[in-house]
Amino acid sequence: MNTVIDSMMKRRSCKSYRPDPVPQELIDEIIETGLYAANWMGRQMPVILAVTDPETRNTLSRLNAKYDPLKRPDPFYGAPVILCVLAPKSDPAAVEDGSLVLGNLMLAAHSLGIGSCWIHRARPVFEDAEGLEVLRRAGLDDSYTGIGHCAIGYPAKTTDRIIPRKENRVFRL
Amino acid sequence: MNTVIDSMMKRRSCKSYRPDPVPQELIDEIIETGLYAANWMGRQMPVILAVTDPETRNTLSRLNAKYDPLKRPDPFYGAPVILCVLAPKSDPAAVEDGSLVLGNLMLAAHSLGIGSCWIHRARPVFEDAEGLEVLRRAGLDDSYTGIGHCAIGYPAKTTDRIIPRKENRVFRL
Repeated sequence: MNTVIDSMMKRRSCKSYRPDPVPQELIDEIIETGLYAANWMGRQMPVILAVTDPETRNTLSRLNAKYDPLKRPDPFYGAPVILCVLAPKSDPAAVEDGSLVLGNLMLAAHSLGIGSCWIHRARPVFEDAEGLEVLRRAGLDDSYTGIGHCAIGYPAKTTDRIIPRKENRVFRL
Repeated sequence: MNTVIDSMMKRRSCKSYRPDPVPQELIDEIIETGLYAANWMGRQMPVILAVTDPETRNTLSRLNAKYDPLKRPDPFYGAPVILCVLAPKSDPAAVEDGSLVLGNLMLAAHSLGIGSCWIHRARPVFEDAEGLEVLRRAGLDDSYTGIGHCAIGYPAKTTDRIIPRKENRVFRL
C-alpha cells in the first residue's frame, strides 16, 4: 500500500477537537489542495470561505445548530477553523465539484496531522439571512450555494487503524 | 509539500488511454480505496460496479454517447476499465457520498501510475432500459442511481506539472 492510499484508508472523520489554533501556513496548504480537486470541464467553479475569526465561526455554528435535527450545541465539535465550500447556483455540477473539494480538504488535513470532518447543512445555513450576511462580509453573495463545511483542528485523539468496510459494496461485470 | 498533497496537486483528468489492460490487483486496490471515502453518518451507502468486460464497457460507452451533448464516439476516451459509482436513490447524501468515492478512486489510480477521469451522465445511463439491464446483470436494480463513472487505464501521456489554479477562489473571515 503506498503512502497516498494508506492515508486515504486511515483518514477518519474527527468529532472532537483541541481548541489549539491551527498554524496559518497549514490552513493555507489545506485550502490550496482543495483548489486542485477534479472539476467539471476544468471550470474550477467552487470557492472556499475560510473562517478563523472565532465570532464568525460561532455564528456559523449557531446557524448550523438551527438546522440540525440532532440539535447539538456545537455541530462543529469544537473545531476552531471552518472551511466552507460553496459553488455558483448556476453550476450544474455544483454538488459534485464541491464534494470533491471537500474530499481534498479532508485528506490534505489528515496528511498534515490535522483532524477534519464534513459538516453538512451548508445550503440552509447560507440561505438564512444571517448566513447571507456572512457571505456578504466575505465578498460573496446569494449567487452561491453552500455545499459543505470542512471543520478542521487538532484532533483530541488519533487512531491509526484501518477499519474494515461494509460488505457487498462491489459488483463486477 | 508531503507525498499525499503532491499527489493531489499533480493528478489530472486523463483524456487519452493506452488499450493495455490494467492488472486486476491494481483495479482491486483502487476500488478498495474508494470504499474508504468519507460518507454520511458512516452509512457507507455508495457501491461500485467495476466493468472490465469489453462488451459491457462498450455498451456503457454507447449509452453514454447517447446522452452526451458533445456526441463523442467514445466518451470514455479509450479507457479499458470503467468503475461506475452508484448510490441508493433513497440516500439523502447520494451525490455527495458518491462524489467522494469518485475522488478517492481518481487519486488512488493516480498514486499507482494509472490515469483516470470522471465521466458524467451516469444518472441517465442507468435510468435507460439498457443501462438498467446492465445493473440487473450485476445484481443491482433500479433502487440505485448513477453518480459518475471513473474511467481508468494507462495514460497515453503523463505530466508531472502542477498547474496554477484560477484566482479569486478563496475568501477569508
